[in-house]
Parts: sequence; C-alpha cells; structure tokens
Amino acid sequence: MASSTGDRSQAVRHGLRAKVLTLDGMNPRVRRVEYAVRGPIVQRALELEQELRQGVKKPFTEVIRANIGDAQAMGQRPITFLRQVLALCVNPDLLSSPNFPDDAKKRAERILQACGGHSLGAYSVSSGIQLIREDVARYIERRDGGIPADPNNVFLSTGASDAIVTVLKLLVAGEGHTRTGVLIPIPQYPLYSATLAELGAVQVDYYLDEERAWALDVAELHRALGQARDHCRPRALCVINPGNPTGVPGQRVRRGFAVPLIQEGAHGDGAALRRAAGACLLPLHLQGLHGRVRACGFRGGYVEVVNMDAAVQQQMLKLMSVRLCPPVPGQALLDLVVSPPAPTDPSFAQFQAEKQAVLAELAAKAKLTEQVFNEAPGISCNPVQGAMYSFPRVQLPPRAVERAQELGLAPDMFFCLRLLEETGICVVPGSGFGQREGTYHFRMTILPPLEKLRLLLEKLSRFHAKFTLEYS
Amino acid sequence: MASSTGDRSQAVRHGLRAKVLTLDGMNPRVRRVEYAVRGPIVQRALELEQELRQGVKKPFTEVIRANIGDAQAMGQRPITFLRQVLALCVNPDLLSSPNFPDDAKKRAERILQACGGHSLGAYSVSSGIQLIREDVARYIERRDGGIPADPNNVFLSTGASDAIVTVLKLLVAGEGHTRTGVLIPIPQYPLYSATLAELGAVQVDYYLDEERAWALDVAELHRALGQARDHCRPRALCVINPGNPTGVPGQRVRRGFAVPLIQEGAHGDGAALRRAAGACLLPLHLQGLHGRVRACGFRGGYVEVVNMDAAVQQQMLKLMSVRLCPPVPGQALLDLVVSPPAPTDPSFAQFQAEKQAVLAELAAKAKLTEQVFNEAPGISCNPVQGAMYSFPRVQLPPRAVERAQELGLAPDMFFCLRLLEETGICVVPGSGFGQREGTYHFRMTILPPLEKLRLLLEKLSRFHAKFTLEYS
Repeated sequence: MASSTGDRSQAVRHGLRAKVLTLDGMNPRVRRVEYAVRGPIVQRALELEQELRQGVKKPFTEVIRANIGDAQAMGQRPITFLRQVLALCVNPDLLSSPNFPDDAKKRAERILQACGGHSLGAYSVSSGIQLIREDVARYIERRDGGIPADPNNVFLSTGASDAIVTVLKLLVAGEGHTRTGVLIPIPQYPLYSATLAELGAVQVDYYLDEERAWALDVAELHRALGQARDHCRPRALCVINPGNPTGVPGQRVRRGFAVPLIQEGAHGDGAALRRAAGACLLPLHLQGLHGRVRACGFRGGYVEVVNMDAAVQQQMLKLMSVRLCPPVPGQALLDLVVSPPAPTDPSFAQFQAEKQAVLAELAAKAKLTEQVFNEAPGISCNPVQGAMYSFPRVQLPPRAVERAQELGLAPDMFFCLRLLEETGICVVPGSGFGQREGTYHFRMTILPPLEKLRLLLEKLSRFHAKFTLEYS
Repeated sequence: MASSTGDRSQAVRHGLRAKVLTLDGMNPRVRRVEYAVRGPIVQRALELEQELRQGVKKPFTEVIRANIGDAQAMGQRPITFLRQVLALCVNPDLLSSPNFPDDAKKRAERILQACGGHSLGAYSVSSGIQLIREDVARYIERRDGGIPADPNNVFLSTGASDAIVTVLKLLVAGEGHTRTGVLIPIPQYPLYSATLAELGAVQVDYYLDEERAWALDVAELHRALGQARDHCRPRALCVINPGNPTGVPGQRVRRGFAVPLIQEGAHGDGAALRRAAGACLLPLHLQGLHGRVRACGFRGGYVEVVNMDAAVQQQMLKLMSVRLCPPVPGQALLDLVVSPPAPTDPSFAQFQAEKQAVLAELAAKAKLTEQVFNEAPGISCNPVQGAMYSFPRVQLPPRAVERAQELGLAPDMFFCLRLLEETGICVVPGSGFGQREGTYHFRMTILPPLEKLRLLLEKLSRFHAKFTLEYS
C-alpha cells in the first residue's frame, strides 16, 4: 500500500477489485505452516464425496475417512451417562424429568452450581471452572499413584491443541542463533511443526526408533540436542505419549535434560514423568477429550504445569484470558470424564459396561490391524498401543518413487493419493508427520467398525500388492 | 541453557529446582500483551469474593461483576427453544420424548444429520459444518437486504475472538518500517491490542469522537493513516460495530481506504459495509454468539470474508485446520441463532416473546444507565446503543490524578480500584481500552437485573461524588 496508494485509490474509485492482501504479501510464517492431517488428501476426499453424490462412477461407493481419529464419526456410540448429564446441564428444565437417573441429576446440578448464573451459557474464568480444575487435579493424583496435583496448576483448554500452542508461545524468544529450538519426536503430530513454523521457532527433530516399537532413544535425544545447539537455543523437549501417530514410546525420560518437558497425553508412564519434574524442571501434562471420551467435537482439554515459575504462570494465565475462556460444554464433559460414576452410583454398572465395550473393541481392532498388515508382504506395523492410530511402514518400489518425484509428490503422498482414487480409502502419508529418509508410512485410524475395518485392511493390503506389481 | 548448561545439570543432579523458563527468558511479545478486561481489577474482585466467603467484614455483602458482558451469569434467562434443541442434539435419546415440540426435534435432527456420525461429539470440517455455513450465509443475505453471501466465504470459529486473531495473523509481515500496521479505534476492545502485541504488528490508533456519540471521523482516520506511514505499513482498518466498549459508530466507512477492512459485529450498518466491499477490498464480518444469544460460554462465532484473494483464503483455511475445528455445540447454537423458528413453527410465539422480553429489558437498562449517569455531576454518558456496555466519562480531581501517579496507577485504575474496595462494584478502567489523553472512563455492563442496576448506578454515582469531594 505504501508505494502505490495513488494507483489503488484510483482503482478503488473505478470499482476495480485489486487485492491488497495476496499470497506474496501475507504472513510468511503462516505460509510455511503445513498440516497434513487436513491437507490436500483430505480436500481430494471431500471432492470425491461430492462427485459420488452427483452420481459420478467410481471404483468404490463411499469414501472411508481413516485419516482422522474421530470415533463418533465412525459410529462409536457415545456413553449414555455423559449424554444424560450434558443434556441436563444444557437444559435444566429436564432436572424435573423422571427419565434421568439420580446421579446424573446430581452431577448436572453440581456442575451448574459452579457455572456463572448456573448456566453453561455463561463465560467461565479463563483458567476454567474452579470445581472442574479441582476434579482434574484429583484425577491426576489417582492416576499417578498419589503424587499431589495442585488445582491451581491445572488450566482447562479448547482441546489439547490450544494448551500446546499456549505453552509453546511462552517459550519463543531470540533471533538467529539464539532462537528458541523445540525438540519434537519424528514421526510427530503436525500441530507441533505447524505451531513452531507459525511462531518462528526452530523445530529440532529427534527420531523415535521404529525397530523397537517407536521407543524413545536417549542417545538420539543427545544427538539431536547437540546438533541443535549449533544453530538455535533448545528450550523444550516434547514427548507425545501415547504417540500420535506412532503409539507409546517405551522409554522413560528422566534426567539430564535441563529443558522444559512438554508431555502430551499421560499414557502408562505419566507418573514417572511427573516424578521427573524435579529433574526436568518444567513438565506439562496435556490431555484432550479426544483420547478419553472420544468426543473431540466438544473441544475440551487441560494442561497441568508442574514447577513452572510463578511469574511465567501469571503470563500464561494472561495469555489465556485474551481468549476469554474454553468452551463451557467441553469443560463440563471433561469433568465427567475425570470423575466418572462411583461404584455406589446408580449409573455405575451401565457406564462401566459401555466403557469396557468400547475399550475391548478398540483392543480387538488394534490387534487385527497389526495382524493383517504384518501378513501383507511389504507392509510392517508395530503394535498399536494406547492410541487410535496405526502407522504402518510400506515398501514402495524404486519406480514408484521415481514416478512420484516426476510428479513433484512425496512418494508416500503419491501412494496415498492413488489409494484414495482407486479404493476410496483416505489415509495420511507419513511424510506429513516426518519419518527417516527413505522410509515410507501412512497413518490410519483403527476406528471403523470391526468388520468394516477388516475389509478396509484387506483392501488396502491388496492395493499395495497391486501398486507394487505395477511399478516393479 | 546454552551458556550455563554445566551449572544447570549440576543443579538438576542435586535436585535443585532452578527454572529454565523465567520472566526474563520468555517470549517478550507475550510479556507485552495487556488485557484489562480480565486484568488486575478482576483478580482483586476474585480475592474479595474469597474474603467475603471467609467472613471478612467489608462495606458490602457481594461483589457485583459489571466488568464483563456475560448475560447468563447476570441471571438473564436463556431462550427455551435454544435449550431444547441443544439438549436434543446432545442426547438424541430425547428425540422420542413427548416433552419437546416438533419443530425443536426437527431442528435437532437436521443438525445431527449434518454432523459426523450424527453426533455433536464428532469433529466437524475445520471451516465448520457445511449446513450451518449455508444457514449463516442466508442469514447475512436477509440482514443485508439481499446482497448475496457465499457459504464458502463463511468460516465458523471459536467465538468471535478466534476469527479476529486468525484474520490478523494473515496480515502480519515485514520488519522495521515495513512492519504491518493495523488501525484500531480508540477506545477499542483489548483483544485487538493484545493480538497485535503478540504478533509483533504495529497498533495504529484512530480516535472515535466522544462528543458525537463515539462517531467514526474520516478526517481522523486520514490523520492516523498518514502518521502511521512514517513508521509502518498500514494494512488493515478495524471497525468495531457495535462498538465495544463504546456503542455504535454513527458514520459509514465507504471509500478511500485501500486497506482490508475488518469489521466486528454487524449492527445497523452491516449492509452498507458489505456494499463497500468493492471499494474497501477486503471487508470481513465477524460475529460471536456473545452478542446474539448471549450464550458466550459456548464459544460460537463466524467470520465472512468478502473479496478475499482465493490463495490467501486457502491459507486461512489451512491455519484454521491446524486447530481442527470450532466446538461443535457452539456451531449448533449458532445455527439456531441465525435461523430461529419461523412464524408457522410451534415454538415461534414463545421464542418471540422470550426474545422480545430480553430486548425490551436491555433497552430499558440502556436508557436507565444513560439517564442516571448524566444526572450525576462529573459523569457523562453517551447513549448506549446496540451493545451491552456503557462507557461513561468521569471527571477526576487533579489531586486524585496526582495520588494515582504517586501509586504508579492510571488515574481511572485508581478510581476503579477504590470503587471496588468500597462498594464491591467491579468495572474496567478506560485506560484498558484506550482514551484521549487527560480523559477518564470506565466500562460497565448494563446487564444486571433492572432494579439491581438502578441501585448499582446510584451507588456508583454517589461513590464518585464522595471520591471527588475527598480529593478536592
């Protein structure tokens, strides 16, 4: 604008629609952001769905969205107790209805008492409803074998993503060689790389060990840290646990890293990581509703900060307050997830039965996925543990790799696009998460119903065989 | 870490809890963020509430939170139809209950059909549920007298705040003299200043004209723009309409500003601003649930982009997709707000009656606020139009200003803190929004119930008189 104001005013007066904001002029950091999970392959899947609706003939009748871990979209039935309490919270007129169990009513009343104006429609304080922060703290204590958790260190968030971004924002500083570096696992969940790109921080990759079930290798961490020190100032280590896209890292991170530790999720080794707080100085626990209730559309989540400098914690609260508050229905749902019905409550039996059914089905799906993929020549798959994703490795023939390069595509993107076009199966290429040079993967959810999943796995394996033959 | 790794490792080994992240080392942009609406005065209000609960004697029995526009926390009853449909969406088992009107059921079914897995618990696409984007587009068309709106230009968001931040992010570029400048009205809603500080953009102030009911003055815009060009590259003009904290700017912004126009809200002059799209190149409409249903805790909102460069729009979508999706319950609520019951629907009469009652009460409160304040010596208040805030101006005696300076406080902060300590009334000082040098204001919501509001206004006016006497 500065240089051509006269021209533009002229254009404006003549009603021409010259654009002030173009790709060249926009935020270069935003341009550098990549986010494969909802990237071009998902765009193409949407187009294919539209074509199917318009009656275009395809070699498949539906697009199977195995790209994102969205349980309810895959037909997983929500838990009755959660739905009941939320309905009562949303519409308290129902509290007088005989069709809800007593404990659901009591829980709804307890949550509403803690809300402004006794309504989910009111803002909460920016850190989240105090009662729910207390419930989350007690949940963490139970989970971690009694290590105390302070509700004042618990902050509710708009999904785990929001909490991760807020914490990363605090850490970013410096220029050139003193820019903040953040260690992230490869493969990683691309929220990390996208956020670091947007914030102008340096992404420092450390590779998980695929041969040992995606274990975290301390020697590799030291390598990454040592190399990073040449060009940035590493200030945080991210551990994703359970791994997304990979599964659970098997190793513990305990000592020797004087960097804040950001841990997403709290599978298995949560207690060990929190005990390491003294050593690691600033661990954080992030937990989204995503993994727990699988009601990710509510965008609930929390972060626990341990041993954070009090003044920095005040700054974090200030930053959160600019966005007013996390969605209150998501806060309410989080409360139910961290404090489910007790054995003496009327809803306990049904709640447990429904929850166990979901978990048993997930375990069966994980087993099936591992089994079918490992039987397929050229595909290998680590055990699927704790997360709802598999991240199998695929062999791609050299001619397919060449063909992809001609097309300007990552080889696994080429594979996944062909898979989508020919079978309707939508998965995310490993290159969107990062992987060792020369290896190829894709991320697939294990969430479709069991029989549908079996067909999907077999179809995918057959396609891989055909693809391999075609390019051999 | 780079310089003192040895020391820190030592400290770690000895179990000392040296902090890696301190105020000095954290993100300097985050430190510069200020957010008065939930700042120190609100912290103090929380402390006072706690003291009251602990039985500490105070000159008041409750803290009145007139600092934030949270209708439901102030006892405004939510609209029955909205609660019914949301409860049905949250718990579809209720669809078979005879206790809900048919149109509420139909609306819930329509929304659920558009959700993944027919559940609010599923993620939506990142731009929001397509059906709801279409409903929003039709709403905009009706509101703006038929000017077409394209659903593909409508993006749902996590409250209006989220949409504003996303759009501002796109614009930020350059260094030094080419840094992006953004024109914002003074007084402004501090989300703008906070976000610009965090993004490292230049805040360019243009003053609204208090003498003409906070009108937007085009000559003042030109002054601000001209001055800004010396030290930055102005790239966007923000218009907040209805004004927060001030009310509605009476002037139209039409031509002559070849900068993207960001308009929050769409009160009164929405159509004119959208018509100006051709001239102004990139207007945006932002609308939160906040102002409409006053169910801000759901964090619903949308942004309409008009005449945005297609490639930039793709980048915006990518940026939104990193955060997965806006909360789905908030999307559902937004849908109900933009397409309320039609005159032939069973719920129409009750919906209209409840809505009119809310609007009539707000109008009465606006009138009362203006009247009581303008009768008080040393207080003046513009008409309260369209928003739920008043932003009265207060005369503060020179000795009070001196005393504040001794204490290192802004004079209106000093006034508001004293007000809080002596009356329990919590309002936000004008300095948190910006104001002309030497003038003092505070922002107060008009939301408390009418009789409570009257007492509050009178108490506040009496306190001002006493304060003035004390420092004269």
